[in-house]
Amino acid sequence: MIVNLKIKDGEPDKAARKAETQRMRTVLVGQQQAIREAKLPVIVMVEGWDCAGKGNLIRELICEMDPRFFSVKNFGRVPEYEERYPFLKKFFDVLPETGKFLFMDTGWMEDVVGKYLRREISREEYERRVESCNTLERQLRDNGYVLIKLFLHISREEQLRRITDLRENRDTQWRVSGDDLWQQQEYEQFLRAYDQFMEATGVTAPWHILDGENRKNALYEALTAITGTVDRAIIAGRYEGAPTGRQFPLLGYPSQKDADLTATIDPDKYDKKLKQLQEKLARLHNQIYRKKIPVVICYEGWDAAGKGGNIRRLTYPLDPRGFDVIPIASPTPGEKARHFLWRFWTKLPRSGHIAIFDRTWYGRVMVERIEGFCSENDWKRAYGEINEFEKELTDWGTVVLKFWIHIDPDTQLERFEARQNTPEKQWKITDEDWRNRDKWPQYEQAVEDMLQKTSTEYAPWYIIESVDKKYARIRTLQIVTDALERAVEENVVRGMKSGR
Amino acid sequence: MIVNLKIKDGEPDKAARKAETQRMRTVLVGQQQAIREAKLPVIVMVEGWDCAGKGNLIRELICEMDPRFFSVKNFGRVPEYEERYPFLKKFFDVLPETGKFLFMDTGWMEDVVGKYLRREISREEYERRVESCNTLERQLRDNGYVLIKLFLHISREEQLRRITDLRENRDTQWRVSGDDLWQQQEYEQFLRAYDQFMEATGVTAPWHILDGENRKNALYEALTAITGTVDRAIIAGRYEGAPTGRQFPLLGYPSQKDADLTATIDPDKYDKKLKQLQEKLARLHNQIYRKKIPVVICYEGWDAAGKGGNIRRLTYPLDPRGFDVIPIASPTPGEKARHFLWRFWTKLPRSGHIAIFDRTWYGRVMVERIEGFCSENDWKRAYGEINEFEKELTDWGTVVLKFWIHIDPDTQLERFEARQNTPEKQWKITDEDWRNRDKWPQYEQAVEDMLQKTSTEYAPWYIIESVDKKYARIRTLQIVTDALERAVEENVVRGMKSGR
Repeated sequence: MIVNLKIKDGEPDKAARKAETQRMRTVLVGQQQAIREAKLPVIVMVEGWDCAGKGNLIRELICEMDPRFFSVKNFGRVPEYEERYPFLKKFFDVLPETGKFLFMDTGWMEDVVGKYLRREISREEYERRVESCNTLERQLRDNGYVLIKLFLHISREEQLRRITDLRENRDTQWRVSGDDLWQQQEYEQFLRAYDQFMEATGVTAPWHILDGENRKNALYEALTAITGTVDRAIIAGRYEGAPTGRQFPLLGYPSQKDADLTATIDPDKYDKKLKQLQEKLARLHNQIYRKKIPVVICYEGWDAAGKGGNIRRLTYPLDPRGFDVIPIASPTPGEKARHFLWRFWTKLPRSGHIAIFDRTWYGRVMVERIEGFCSENDWKRAYGEINEFEKELTDWGTVVLKFWIHIDPDTQLERFEARQNTPEKQWKITDEDWRNRDKWPQYEQAVEDMLQKTSTEYAPWYIIESVDKKYARIRTLQIVTDALERAVEENVVRGMKSGR
Repeated sequence: MIVNLKIKDGEPDKAARKAETQRMRTVLVGQQQAIREAKLPVIVMVEGWDCAGKGNLIRELICEMDPRFFSVKNFGRVPEYEERYPFLKKFFDVLPETGKFLFMDTGWMEDVVGKYLRREISREEYERRVESCNTLERQLRDNGYVLIKLFLHISREEQLRRITDLRENRDTQWRVSGDDLWQQQEYEQFLRAYDQFMEATGVTAPWHILDGENRKNALYEALTAITGTVDRAIIAGRYEGAPTGRQFPLLGYPSQKDADLTATIDPDKYDKKLKQLQEKLARLHNQIYRKKIPVVICYEGWDAAGKGGNIRRLTYPLDPRGFDVIPIASPTPGEKARHFLWRFWTKLPRSGHIAIFDRTWYGRVMVERIEGFCSENDWKRAYGEINEFEKELTDWGTVVLKFWIHIDPDTQLERFEARQNTPEKQWKITDEDWRNRDKWPQYEQAVEDMLQKTSTEYAPWYIIESVDKKYARIRTLQIVTDALERAVEENVVRGMKSGR
């Protein structure tokens, strides 16, 4: 793409360009209101050479915009603590809500290419991250985001001139880092790498290459790309194409049909077994902390199936500094106005920590599907999006465990009535619980679809029979300790090893 | 307090203690619902010696609680990026909302005492931080928080035994840090320092010293302190005492009466002056970044006074990586459920960055006062709380500038009508603007009170006459550049210099 791009020379018609630039600036200001009405979130990602003027371009783009409706995020060298999360997390963190612009000063290209050229990630990991970027861009489009990718291009000679200028001024010399000098020296290598990355990621959203040698040209070209893309997006409305996610082999099990709800544990054995597994888990918690293995444990299940008590038995032996229980309720307005996985991406555990989700992203294909809180297109697409999400987690080295806490309708009725009749438990039962109960058959179908479409080798589902709650507790503890033991032994944390 | 405390020996009645512990655990579970109904937020701060079992105590406290209604935060050694904010910010960041428990694994005592003993802050800075802690605790109480402070005490010999045990086990040896070993060696010094700190901060909330030598005693004592305090707080209801904030000398100016609304700038001079000041500001922005000076600029003013355009002229020369414009709308439910300054504390600029607040914490004493969104007690107390807040900022080295953008009612009417008659500006004018306009006299009084009660030497108010918007822009730019120039020259950044 850019390898063969000649830096433009020759003078454009200055007066015409100036007038057109001013006109487009006004259009952009108006588009702030238009995207609010159209409920579109817009991301402008500005990549480019060091010293190409990315910050300056963004400054010129935003200077007439209303600060209530845009934000600017600067990536660049990522601080150490960010590296303790999957690499896409930092980009999910800053996703704008509908009706807002986000300007990114460097984005996933610099992150992936920079790490690769600095030998911080392997070629294999690089290839995987390119695929992750494509997945991200497709998911963004599918979830209504407008993405505009700009690359600010300057020649090696121009970069050298600018570095020299900056270093000559006492107030600006700190702006030139070792990274900049190294890029200058390895310009040809970077050129090939940027080019390759842009070739590989032009799938969902095209790259716009801007003339960074001339500020006014660059601004003109950026405004053309942005206002044009936004205009087309407003006209086209929300993307409603067919789901096109990556395909992963599905296990085809478990199924509710195969659950044995008569399963039970001898009460005498329970206490001993519980203590033994909890002690083992406490030991393993130390080890996964030391080995920096991240763990995500998902709890889904019927109301009154015993999720809460199950989670408490699991967390009791854990050091509170090393885990979080994350209860998931219905999304807030700010959460609804973003990619549906945003609120989960932002809550991922740091490496070495355990996150226990009490209800999860599977709400999308259960309650949201059944109550019509999202479109059919949305929930049908979600199976693939969730598989991709969990693939990101496991590729990065996360242990992902998913429990469906299972009971039958009669057991639920018994427990609902017991709650109703116990004063200090009444707050636990609401009209909504009864309404959901009436929809048991619909939920049963949704659960079955979920189990079939999202049980993968890297993130399988476990049905936990919980008519006997004690049996259920022992079973989850057993699965968790087995999985952590395996992870500690294998100790092959791919994304992290190569990514850090 | 603890210097003379003898570690208890002698055996309590084990069976009775066990039964009572279990009873209080159940009470604590019930209190989760009770504080939800009473809309109380509860903070349990667990301090104590290294290896005293803070994590373990928290684990025992939470093990039967419902994770939807509590969270645990671990402080300890603060990461470098946190040090780029005023030291209280990290505690404000984690404030729970009403109806929730927060358990803190170490808090402001460890932060202040640890830094002081490690010689990271001076004695003078230490004293100042102690006062800040007292201010924080009083503000928390005044804003409805229940604070329970626990100190887990063990002897020097016991600490040594525990350190030795941890180091003998391969899975736990990483838990012993150099800090722990140093504390063991300097036990006597720490003992005096903890003691002094507790003496100095027993003002608003008492310290509870727990027998850390015996896990079961400690749990029993912690449960007694927590359930007792929460019970009393539920009975007492929300704190409604008289305002008792720290007093700072007030400037007594400016006043709206003294504003000269005929002030204007020669349009010929405007362009030149604007360009000159913007260039100067761009240079200064580099310098404050290099010198790591944080800057907070507050914009308040009448509707249609020209805030937006004024802010854009100010930000135009700034590097987008080094500033944020933070538009303040009405608080979200999560924000309303916390200390009213929480949403501002969490948005403070990192050192070297500029935060421009488009509307601010002064909403408390203007719109919230006039519309009755908070009690009279709340807004009357807010003047002092705001002065204390801004004192924290300036003590830490922040440049705080506050602009009141001023016009008269006729000018506002003209501008409202112009907006109404310009299609692309109609979205900027709402029924609410007209309603607010009807309350001009009330607002005028509230503005005057605000100017009189919160204009301090360290954070003065500036009235910016803005009937001529160009005049207003030059004036704010002039004030900002002058203030930044002074800050760069003085370069005495007290909190930061001593705090880093």
